[in-house]
Formats: sequence, C-alpha cells, structure tokens
Amino acid sequence: MQHASPINDVQQKLEQTRDQRVSELQELLRIPSVSAVSAHHDDCREAANWVHKQLAACGFETETVETDGLPIVSAEWTKAKGAPTALVYGHYDVQPPDPLNEWTTPPFEPTIRDGCLFARGATDDKGQVFTHIKSVAAWLDATGKLPINVKFVIEGEEEVGSNNLEKFLESHKYRLACDIAVISDTAQYGNGIPAITYGLRGILACEVILHGPHQDLHSGVFGGAITNPVNALAKMLGTLHDDDGRIQIPGFYDDVIPLTDEERRAFADLPFDEQAYCKSLGIDAVAGEAGYTTLERRWARPTCDINGFFGGYQGEGPKTIIPAKATAKITCRLVPGQDAHQLTQALEHFLREQCPPGVRFEFKTYHGAPAVLCDTSSPYMAAARKAVEAGFGQTPVMIREGGSIPVVGSFKQILGVDTLLLGWGRNTDNLHGPNEHFHLEDFHHGTLASAHLWAALSQ
Amino acid sequence: MQHASPINDVQQKLEQTRDQRVSELQELLRIPSVSAVSAHHDDCREAANWVHKQLAACGFETETVETDGLPIVSAEWTKAKGAPTALVYGHYDVQPPDPLNEWTTPPFEPTIRDGCLFARGATDDKGQVFTHIKSVAAWLDATGKLPINVKFVIEGEEEVGSNNLEKFLESHKYRLACDIAVISDTAQYGNGIPAITYGLRGILACEVILHGPHQDLHSGVFGGAITNPVNALAKMLGTLHDDDGRIQIPGFYDDVIPLTDEERRAFADLPFDEQAYCKSLGIDAVAGEAGYTTLERRWARPTCDINGFFGGYQGEGPKTIIPAKATAKITCRLVPGQDAHQLTQALEHFLREQCPPGVRFEFKTYHGAPAVLCDTSSPYMAAARKAVEAGFGQTPVMIREGGSIPVVGSFKQILGVDTLLLGWGRNTDNLHGPNEHFHLEDFHHGTLASAHLWAALSQ
Repeated sequence: MQHASPINDVQQKLEQTRDQRVSELQELLRIPSVSAVSAHHDDCREAANWVHKQLAACGFETETVETDGLPIVSAEWTKAKGAPTALVYGHYDVQPPDPLNEWTTPPFEPTIRDGCLFARGATDDKGQVFTHIKSVAAWLDATGKLPINVKFVIEGEEEVGSNNLEKFLESHKYRLACDIAVISDTAQYGNGIPAITYGLRGILACEVILHGPHQDLHSGVFGGAITNPVNALAKMLGTLHDDDGRIQIPGFYDDVIPLTDEERRAFADLPFDEQAYCKSLGIDAVAGEAGYTTLERRWARPTCDINGFFGGYQGEGPKTIIPAKATAKITCRLVPGQDAHQLTQALEHFLREQCPPGVRFEFKTYHGAPAVLCDTSSPYMAAARKAVEAGFGQTPVMIREGGSIPVVGSFKQILGVDTLLLGWGRNTDNLHGPNEHFHLEDFHHGTLASAHLWAALSQ
Repeated sequence: MQHASPINDVQQKLEQTRDQRVSELQELLRIPSVSAVSAHHDDCREAANWVHKQLAACGFETETVETDGLPIVSAEWTKAKGAPTALVYGHYDVQPPDPLNEWTTPPFEPTIRDGCLFARGATDDKGQVFTHIKSVAAWLDATGKLPINVKFVIEGEEEVGSNNLEKFLESHKYRLACDIAVISDTAQYGNGIPAITYGLRGILACEVILHGPHQDLHSGVFGGAITNPVNALAKMLGTLHDDDGRIQIPGFYDDVIPLTDEERRAFADLPFDEQAYCKSLGIDAVAGEAGYTTLERRWARPTCDINGFFGGYQGEGPKTIIPAKATAKITCRLVPGQDAHQLTQALEHFLREQCPPGVRFEFKTYHGAPAVLCDTSSPYMAAARKAVEAGFGQTPVMIREGGSIPVVGSFKQILGVDTLLLGWGRNTDNLHGPNEHFHLEDFHHGTLASAHLWAALSQ
C-alpha cells in the first residue's frame, strides 16, 4: 500500500507543518547576521545559536565550533548503519542589506507578499539551507529515523570568503567523512524549470586604493598640478577591458578550459528569452565578451567587475575638489583552469604598472576560489535528478552557474567528495540586492525534494 | 602732524577693536550656511541677516534682496560727493564641510589655535569679506565718513554657481553703478608675499550618470552578461587625458590664449619650492600637462578633474555586486579664450559617444564661467598696490589664480568695470577641504589694507 511507505508519511508531515516552517524561517531571517560588518557579529552568533537549537531539536548531535572568526554549526545523525552519508553545507550569514532605501519592506523584517517571503537571506542562504533542516526533521518526526546518515556544516563567513572553513574541514575531516556533499545555494534555471548545477565559476576579490594628497584640495587652486587619484584610478581601471569586452590583463585567458561543443549545444537548447531578460533587469541590451551567448558569458567565461568605486564628493550639487583618494573593489569570476592566486597577482601587477606619479598604490586581497566542474554521470547525480523531479514535478535541466561556492572545491580536496548543487531559488530572487525574496512555492518544493533525496541516495 | 591724518585714526580704531572683530567673525562662522545642501538654506538666510545687521550698524543703507534662490545683501554709503565708487563683492555661503571626520575641531565651532581661526568659511569667504565690512566700520567710527563711496553686494550662492546673481546685477545695475569692483576671495602668493591677482581660470561643472540594471545585481549570476555601469564609466572617464596629461576632448585647446613669454618669465621668477609644495600636500611628486611648470599648470592651463565618483558598495570588505549605476561629478578649469558652454557640450558629446550598450547616459550641467584677465596698468591697480603694501608691509607680486570667480566676468559685462582681486588668505588655508582656517595675522593685515584702499582710491 503506497500510503504506508515512509516517504509518504514524511510528505504528510511536511504538509501538516507548512505554516509553522515558514514562521520558523521568519524567526531566523529577523536576525541581521551580516558577516561583512563587525558590528553585526553578535547577530551572526545569535543566528548560529538559532540553527544549533533547530538541529539539536531534530535529534542531531550538534556542536557549535568556535573559529578565529565566526562559529560553525556542525551536526550529525549517523544511525543508518551501512547506508551512505551525505554532508549538507550551508551558511547562516548574509550579505549587507545596502542600499537600504531601495527595500520596500525592511531587510530584517521578513514580510510575505505575492507568494514570496521578502528578507535579506530569504534564499541566500537561510531559506535554502532551512529546507534540509526541515526535511530531516520531518523524516525523524514521521518515521523516527533517516534512510541515510546526514551531517550538517553551517558556517557564518560565506559572504566574506569562508576564511575559517578550510581549517575547520581539515581539523574535522574524519568527523565529516561522507560520500557526497549537498548544497542548496544556487538557483533553478527558470520559473518551473528546476536544475542541477554541475559547474560553478571561481572568484578572486581585491581592493585598489590610490592615495593622493593628504586631504581633499581645492580643484581651482591645485587642479592641473597634481595627480587626481580619481582620474588616475578611472584611467587605470578603464584599461581592464578592450572594446570587445575581452579582459586585458596579460595571461588572463591562458589557462581557461573552453566549453565543449556539446555544452554549447546544450546551453543553446535551453529556453532563453533575451528580451524578457533585459526587461526584468531594466536594461536595453545585454553586453559582454564578443563571440559568446549570454548563457555562456554568465556560466563559463571569466569576468572582471568593479563592485564599488568611490572617491571625492557624493552629496548634492557640485563640489570643486581634488579628492584625497580613490578606492575600487574588484572581483573576477574565474572559470575551470584559472588560478585565483596567480591571477590576483597578475591583476595587481597590471594595475600597479599603470599607476602614475603623485599617487601611492595600495592593493588589498580578499578571498579567492577556483571554479568547479562536477561529474554528471555519477549515481549521486542520478539520485538528485530523481529527488528534484519528485519535489518539483519536473525533470531538472543540467546547468552551470556564474556564482562561486568555494567550499565545493574544498570538499573535493579535503574530504574527497563531489557536491550536488541543488538550487531551489530563482535568479530573480534578488540575492545580494535589495528586496531579496524566496517564493514560498520553491521553499516547499525544495523541502520535499530534500526529503526525497535522502530516500533516493539510500538506494 | 601725521597723527592727525584720518587714516591714522582709522588705524588706531582697528587696533582698539582687534579682539572684538575676531569674536564677531566667530559669530558669523558659527552659522552653517552651506548653500549646496537644501537643509542648510535656513542657516544661509540667518547668515544673510547677520551680514545685513553688521552693515546697517555701520551706517550703510542696507537691503536684503530676495532672489529665486538665496537672498543677496546689498548696501551702500554714497555721501562722498565727486569721489569714485568702489563695489565690494563677497559671499556668506560656504562649501559643504565633508569629510567631517577629518576636522580636528568641528567646522562650525570656530576655534583659535596656532594663531589661526579654524572653521568652514574662515577664509572662503566669510573671513575675507568681513575685513572690508570692518574697514568701513572703522572709517565711519573714527572719522564719521569714508574717503570714497562704497557699495556691498554679498550673496549666498557663490559655492553653487551664483545662479541668481547675474539677474540681480542686471536688475540693479543703476543702483550698483561704480568705478571699480573689489573682491577678496583669492590668496596671497605665499607666506609674507602678498599678491594682486590679475587673472583667474573659468569653470564648467557637470555630472555624468550611467544607469544600468534597475538595482544592484549578483556579480556571479549576472557578471559578464550585462554592462557594469562602474566599469563603463571608468573606461569612458579614463579617456579624458592622454599619458602626457593632455585633455582628449576634441577642440578643447582650440581657443586657449597662450601665456606670453613675459608672463612665463615672471612666473619663473617667483619663489617656488617644489619639494616643500609636495611635502605640504602629502604627495611624492607634482604631475600635470607635459611642457608646463607647476605655476603655469595651476594658473594658466585648463583642467578636467573628477571631483567625485561613486557607484556600488563602499562598506567594509568585499560585496559581489554589479552596481545599478555610476556617477561622476566633473569640473574643468578654463583659461582665457575658452567658452564654458561650448566645452560643456564638447565634453558631453565626447562621453556620450563612448557610452556602451546596456547603460543609459544622463548628463547634468551645473554653472559655468569664463576665465578673467585684468588690465595691470590701471590707476585702480596702482592704488591697490599701495594699499596692500601699507596693510602687509610688503610690495605685492602680480599673479594669476587657478580658481574661478565668475562674478568678475559679470561685473565687466553688466557694470562695465574691472575688478581688484585682493586676496588676504593663503593657499594652505584648506579652503574647500577639512580644517579650513584663516591666519589672524592675515585677517588684521587685510583689514588694514582695505582701510588704506579707500584712501588710495580717493587720490
């Protein structure tokens, strides 16, 4: 009798707890756990505690491990003797909510409207990691056990480079031993088109500061006689790309593993409405490296983007000054083959060489991570396909993603396992921007898919 | 008997009122009359009232004239029948005080230390215009009259382009009729080297905004596929100068009247310590247009400076976004021959032509003004030399200035008069920057020179 199978009991349990699960997620979203801002580090610890309590309440053996930065919540349920072990990774920290004035409702006052839950972290990653916490809770609640062993690692520094995660993985590698890792920090391909992500871009992040005069100076009295740090930095950064959108840092493309013809064909087969895409972003045209489609540019070509540039007067009206300094925050998205460390050095060298007299060049390096390509033919991948289909009622498409999840590389290197990248959210969920949200429908489908995944991985 | 001459009585009066005059100036400096910020417009009106009361108390017929923006204080004493008439111009508004955290003492809490009075507006222009108010006060107080007729026009929108001044001059041209204008809004050449300024640079001011996606986007998900407005604006602005510091806007130098050989020789004869100059500014080298000295670059060559550039994330640490927009505030300093309106159009065209697809180009124009060259052989200039020498105990040198005082052109055009530019302050007074100050010694010498000027102009 189908009704008697454990997954059906789990499914029923999930149905019964729909509203409660949303309400619990709202509790977590109320905590402004912005890891990039030191003033919010107490909030980050509060979010860690909240996650700890949730996992402990499910029956997981749970520990909050201190690091040199923010703590990592580690939990496990390993009573499925002989069954495989999955390791779920997620993060409780969120991006800064700026620009605050563009939020319709405040970023840390989670609000439901139009079937979506609006809050910073709603999808990235509190909402998505919560689906796995609630799927194991439903299994344990409905059946008293899980079909496989499950471990959790939920950290608090993903948005600032996961600086203390590798060390934690190294020192806990035996405790974290597993067969496959699971991460929900990517997105569906489109509305009603769930996806499994088999490739990610890597990243390098840095900051360039040009120091000019010791303070802002009158542009009439001094203009023309000293180097203006903002003009100088604009000129330097203006050389990063040629008119075809090709990055001009010497050697930048040398190690790029190109897309296969098969991948290019598969990408071309995916539905993509360029006009609708532009409209949704409020732009009149896509643009990028010549010779590539939009999907190829997003998923498999490297970038060099200025994420922030500031120097001088930003208020109302004009102000006639030579600014004292200029700063640019830069990230490059990397593709398979490229080395973050080596290219960070190449970028620094490229810019430093161009620095004119009269300003002092400063370069800060943030986190870096290599790109990822997963084996699409593994049994884990087959189980994931089955689970996503059960959760969303749709066969998932196989895609790459433009974002970076550095931990996937660490899992491979330290734990020796591949990762299933199962994204429940959407690219239009405004992660990292104002009005981030999570479709409640996706939240529920994702939780169901997660519940199915434990069963599928046990077979 | 020398002691009985009126100027000696005036001088004695000035001696007696030294402390009181400093204390009164502090009152004016306490008013945060920042014209660029609408929230400070009530403060601007308070400053206008304060100036009005001072002039009325001297015995001047005084009126505060409303405009479409901030009011203009107009005053006159015209009882010296048959004597020439001088028109003193100044402004009661000040630059914004940003960056606030770099001030040692708050910008609107005037503080005396090391013989200087620190406050926003201390020299530019409250302190300097106040010397003329107190010199006429001393004359009237000590002798009951002035040796010539004196009029004042003190406006409140100099720092935002004097948008309502020309209209006022046009509609009051008969009331303002005069033989010579006097402005103290420039600087001495150096410590103990007073100067008369016979040339000024003009200015054009604008703002460029590139609008990209309707909000900040995730740089992983979208990077490479859409135009990044900050990268685009940096690339556009990076083309403004070539590697020799020459401005690349087509036609930019076409109408420049070059320096004469005589001027270049005179500038070269002025004492200038490049090493001390760099040290005072905190830079390791001067830089600018190839083929010109620092003084030539500052006084007689045009510029194109970015006064502010901002787009994207400015907080602590990295943030992986494509910014929604990028903004640059730009001013060009112009030299004799150049037309502000025409070059604003050329700049707009130059940038707009380079704007890539995927971003929308917006261009805002602020005030513009032509450069000025005055006749150095006039009797007014001779009187000014005499007065400055009497006030400072030093023969003034003849210089140009890099700043812009658009009203000088308006006086020539509307009232038909030349202007004596008598600067009491110093280039190191940090006007427009943090910790603006006025040496009290300069304040007192300037007031004395002003008192002598009225006598010298009567001869």
